[in-house]
Amino acid sequence: VAHRSELSAQELVSRARKGEPRAVARLISWVEDGSPALPEVMALLAESSGSAHVVGLTGAPGVGKSTTTSALVAALRARDVQVGVIAVDPTSPFSGGALLGDRIRMQEHATDPGVFIRSMASRGHLGGLSATTPQAVRILEAAGCAVVLVETVGVGQSEVEVAAAADTTVVLLAPGMGDGIQAAKAGILEVGDIFCVNKADRDGADATAREVRNMLSLAERTPAQWHPPVVRSVASRGDVGELLTSIDEHRLWLVESGAGELGRQRRAAEEITAIALAHIRERLSQAASDTVARLASQVVAGESDPYTAAATLLSVLEGRGEGFARDGR
Amino acid sequence: VAHRSELSAQELVSRARKGEPRAVARLISWVEDGSPALPEVMALLAESSGSAHVVGLTGAPGVGKSTTTSALVAALRARDVQVGVIAVDPTSPFSGGALLGDRIRMQEHATDPGVFIRSMASRGHLGGLSATTPQAVRILEAAGCAVVLVETVGVGQSEVEVAAAADTTVVLLAPGMGDGIQAAKAGILEVGDIFCVNKADRDGADATAREVRNMLSLAERTPAQWHPPVVRSVASRGDVGELLTSIDEHRLWLVESGAGELGRQRRAAEEITAIALAHIRERLSQAASDTVARLASQVVAGESDPYTAAATLLSVLEGRGEGFARDGR
Repeated sequence: VAHRSELSAQELVSRARKGEPRAVARLISWVEDGSPALPEVMALLAESSGSAHVVGLTGAPGVGKSTTTSALVAALRARDVQVGVIAVDPTSPFSGGALLGDRIRMQEHATDPGVFIRSMASRGHLGGLSATTPQAVRILEAAGCAVVLVETVGVGQSEVEVAAAADTTVVLLAPGMGDGIQAAKAGILEVGDIFCVNKADRDGADATAREVRNMLSLAERTPAQWHPPVVRSVASRGDVGELLTSIDEHRLWLVESGAGELGRQRRAAEEITAIALAHIRERLSQAASDTVARLASQVVAGESDPYTAAATLLSVLEGRGEGFARDGR
Repeated sequence: VAHRSELSAQELVSRARKGEPRAVARLISWVEDGSPALPEVMALLAESSGSAHVVGLTGAPGVGKSTTTSALVAALRARDVQVGVIAVDPTSPFSGGALLGDRIRMQEHATDPGVFIRSMASRGHLGGLSATTPQAVRILEAAGCAVVLVETVGVGQSEVEVAAAADTTVVLLAPGMGDGIQAAKAGILEVGDIFCVNKADRDGADATAREVRNMLSLAERTPAQWHPPVVRSVASRGDVGELLTSIDEHRLWLVESGAGELGRQRRAAEEITAIALAHIRERLSQAASDTVARLASQVVAGESDPYTAAATLLSVLEGRGEGFARDGR
């Protein structure tokens, strides 16, 4: 209803396919807002889906994520590759322009028709970033992007979520800063496909690279598995050649090993399940609000506990034929 | 199974009720780990549930959360109140001792049998912190705690989640630091019941208090609603009297207005729903993994999209009589 007076999903998708930046931006806003038109949009985008290489960039504040992203865009544009950039800020309730205003270094690409840049907030729909990121990627794929860079602004769990949506995850570090420990803490060590010590012209780059290599050496890997390289960059002067080579190598490995296909299969399964669960959640809140309220009163009164109440809720729903509560074993 | 050789849930709960710190710590570990014994534990704890006043403390790094928590513990102990402290670190995969080691200021309470201190990580069970925090609170209530302080170490969305589990949410600020903007960004302004400018002996405390008051004045509130006060503290020298008075006042208001009961009712409803959904999710992954895999292949091949696939999944489950997919309207 909110979009009635606006362009139809079909018209917007058609314009996005022609590379119209405003249509692309509008569709990504729909993803952020959880628009009711999303199912129609995603159905229209199905055929072009999966065409881009999705590269996630993550790391602690101050390591130079934005600078590195911008340098990668420049390097990819030099190859005449069309590039999409999604800057994800999971903690911000604000979207779009606000964030991009700060990103001076991105401005150099702002007038390049071969680059789509968009910041995106997650408003908690359908399980957050792990759901919204692949949808935004599909829109950029339809617009012709062969590479989509997903840069996380936040910290912690959200980085892991974004990594889960990428084909290749780059963990950025900087000399000093105790990044090794940071990386381990956020579980980033397990999700990184490539570790890149940025600002490698500064003191301590060797030590940081060594620390990460040591931590990586603790993980057991078979020869057939991917062995994450530790590379260097000085993104502020555009020196990201080693990083881009590693990204190319990982992409090739994904294709040759079949790991890329498996990863996409797994991610699609998670996305489908998340959407199905969101449906069930909505039905549950519509169909059973009276039951839930009664059970909640019992819990508050100390007459029941949440697990017993949840079991009762499921059996009530089953009794109504709205089950999905039966024990399949 | 993992706990077979250990004490039974019943025995642990019985020991926790006697105030045995090790039993309390063990039960909170079970909450962190998502132990299969949790339903039994929570059923045993039902009667003592809801007895404590749960106070959430949140704020940006450096405002003095740990110091303030410790000063509040001392002030409450001076009233001879038994106190529980949960320090939540949502980004950390580590639990327990690791974090507490850093918390020098908490050490002064470590030998006080009237204080239970525990740090807790969320490992992503049942919707994260908003689910694990109330369970840990129930354990501390059983151990006799009349006040439970929940301190968030993390930032962003997780703070909002923890606030959702508290009766009273205190947002800590410090002079300078641009906290006002931080607060607005993380949506903290909406969840704060009390705003406390800590380090109030420093320059800029007035300006910070004024900034927060200005931001708060933008929200429209009826006279019957709670109007969040902005108070001051110098926690490093134990000066948290004004803050404690505001906490007392808010607690009184919760009782007299009925808002406390409504909040507990709402939180219990959310907890029950989250547990029911976790059950459904598990069933879904067990019952339909073949279907999901087939649908995921279609999405990866560009023959379908996640929304269409999710609709198919729900109708397949419904066809099997595992529905909950029917449209109730």
